[in-house]
Amino acid sequence: MIYVAILGFGVVGSGVAEVLTTNQESIDRRVRDEIRLKYILDVRDFPDSPYADKFVKDFSVIENDPEVSVVVETIGGATVALDFTRRALQAGKSVVSSNKELVATHGYDLLQLAKEKKVSYLFEASVGGGIPILRPLTSCLAANELTEVCGILNGTTNYILTRMIRGGLSFDAALKEAQEKGYAERDPSADIQGQDACRKICILAALAFGQHIYPSQVPTEGITGITLEDVAYADSCGRKIKLLGRAIRREDGKICAYVAPHLLDGEEPLAGVEDVFNAISVTGNAIGEVMFYGRGAGKLPTASAVVADVIDAARSMGQSKYLDWGPGGEDITFSPDTLSDRWYVRLHAPAEEVRARLGEVQFLARPGATEGETAFLTGRQYTRPELDRALEGLSADSVIRMYH
Amino acid sequence: MIYVAILGFGVVGSGVAEVLTTNQESIDRRVRDEIRLKYILDVRDFPDSPYADKFVKDFSVIENDPEVSVVVETIGGATVALDFTRRALQAGKSVVSSNKELVATHGYDLLQLAKEKKVSYLFEASVGGGIPILRPLTSCLAANELTEVCGILNGTTNYILTRMIRGGLSFDAALKEAQEKGYAERDPSADIQGQDACRKICILAALAFGQHIYPSQVPTEGITGITLEDVAYADSCGRKIKLLGRAIRREDGKICAYVAPHLLDGEEPLAGVEDVFNAISVTGNAIGEVMFYGRGAGKLPTASAVVADVIDAARSMGQSKYLDWGPGGEDITFSPDTLSDRWYVRLHAPAEEVRARLGEVQFLARPGATEGETAFLTGRQYTRPELDRALEGLSADSVIRMYH
Repeated sequence: MIYVAILGFGVVGSGVAEVLTTNQESIDRRVRDEIRLKYILDVRDFPDSPYADKFVKDFSVIENDPEVSVVVETIGGATVALDFTRRALQAGKSVVSSNKELVATHGYDLLQLAKEKKVSYLFEASVGGGIPILRPLTSCLAANELTEVCGILNGTTNYILTRMIRGGLSFDAALKEAQEKGYAERDPSADIQGQDACRKICILAALAFGQHIYPSQVPTEGITGITLEDVAYADSCGRKIKLLGRAIRREDGKICAYVAPHLLDGEEPLAGVEDVFNAISVTGNAIGEVMFYGRGAGKLPTASAVVADVIDAARSMGQSKYLDWGPGGEDITFSPDTLSDRWYVRLHAPAEEVRARLGEVQFLARPGATEGETAFLTGRQYTRPELDRALEGLSADSVIRMYH
Repeated sequence: MIYVAILGFGVVGSGVAEVLTTNQESIDRRVRDEIRLKYILDVRDFPDSPYADKFVKDFSVIENDPEVSVVVETIGGATVALDFTRRALQAGKSVVSSNKELVATHGYDLLQLAKEKKVSYLFEASVGGGIPILRPLTSCLAANELTEVCGILNGTTNYILTRMIRGGLSFDAALKEAQEKGYAERDPSADIQGQDACRKICILAALAFGQHIYPSQVPTEGITGITLEDVAYADSCGRKIKLLGRAIRREDGKICAYVAPHLLDGEEPLAGVEDVFNAISVTGNAIGEVMFYGRGAGKLPTASAVVADVIDAARSMGQSKYLDWGPGGEDITFSPDTLSDRWYVRLHAPAEEVRARLGEVQFLARPGATEGETAFLTGRQYTRPELDRALEGLSADSVIRMYH
């Protein structure tokens, strides 16, 4: 018998309890043992819950119960969650987490501690919700030298962009709709300003390239600056605007990770990812490009990823799982400002002025364009500083990097 | 030091040698041991190969060398490959295979033998080339009761259909082009008649649902009957024709697996999978739908999947990996003829006649339709026998199931 404790009975935590119970039989079959929920830690009371007899308010009950061998942390944040995760690992319990903030900021230390204690620290659910991505990255693609990981990592912003593109809603109206549907939180800033995607690309980069990348090393831009004008111009040239988290490894081993909106060709697999769906594309020297697609959030998809980790932890009792990366450091990253790409630009300046500065560009048109508005795709590749120098004094209304 | 032998130095076998050599450093780091190629078995001579000193012609050299702990089988077919696989497992060596025919026909027996000998029998590369799918099915999605696995499993036929849809080529012209590009073999029958997809859906079904499904239990239809007329009609209603392998589990636990062309809504993620790419969609009760996308064939992608299995086998020396399924049986499957769906039909009969028999249907139009030609989507769901009864005497030129 393997006993599990869940920390935090929110959306994900209650989903984990539900999946453990509903699919108990098939889970036991796969583990070849019985996995049972013993405790749920929450400050609130849930007298009517089917799990009412399992609630505790004091973490030390779990910490000191030698029967509990797997702790599921779905508290979120990096304060209490950090303390409880450390103590659980110290007590020789494996920890499974859906907490991207904690992994992105303290993953290296926690993995070291897990290794030392010969237990597992697993967090498949922290990236891509239910989409299996971390395990494929570390095992299925192990024969590859990976060069890039890139994805639509945030369902809220993808929903907003989809509604702007397909429904013609303004950013504010689309955000409001997302909030009404429960896809965006009341304070949506972590989503729309890109921090959520930033934490996820940190974790993906660490697993793909073997070094901890900290959120502070990842220039992050959200979608609050995207307008319907930009959406219309992108559409006019068969492209879509998507918020991408990208991590690229240069030949010298240095890593560039950043989050920003991009213009994607409509034929790109990532361009077809709509609504709240997420997708992650991985490029390796042998495999070429593979893509993983599914619901990036939601109670049961995320719980499903958590429980897969619980199963894995249960199967590998007594050994640390092979999740591992180096401590990182200031000198291992390079800036996206050194990446040459084509760009989409919208500004108020005559076409001749643009052509005089940039040479041949692809001008774009949209119905209802305002007087003096000019939008175009640059003809050749520039780094962002090079582009800014070329456009100096023109004060662009919008500059978006093109993907591939 | 872990020594590997490769059986068969064809496209995949030589790719495995190349990946093992090129990515040696990162592979060793992941295994925390040294993985080295010791033998390559092939009847042919390769005096100019960089691996010339490793070739042997007698399998017993490998079989009797206790240093060899992992054997890679890329011979194909189910005769010699079966014999060598059995003997390698008997000798206590793990076997990694890209041979879908062997796994689909003898997988259960070989897995039992591997278990008995406490070694691994792994075959990620047998389905989806480089796309990680078998491992996610068995571990990442382990918390789910899976209900359906469905995919575009054959790159050759998907290339042909893409060229028919986008390039307006006839089936014969598209096949010829695929052969010229090396995407189709000189004898393309296993691809275009669906057997290749059939073997793959057998393996996927076995892993998803836990029972061996034999190719003889899988009604299989290829794409040789698809015409440009059908492609044009599909396009006229925003749909695409794709060859799908599907496996569905009914609530009573019985399984239906089959291979056939389908009409997919253009918005379906699978509809966007073009050219030689493959994609596999998996539906589970907790996760909803997830999709895996990438190159389903090719030397290095496939080799990359083989080597990931070699790494896995090397890491788990002394224990059988958790690939496992039951023996199957005649009574575990049910026929796709019992599945109710909407249908696309093309025939020569007046629209009134069709309406008289089927009630409201959605008639389709195409430029250049011949006199008396009628094409439509049925308005409601029918099983195939029900539809055939309703159309009795009209002799349809084309009947294609609609997907979802």
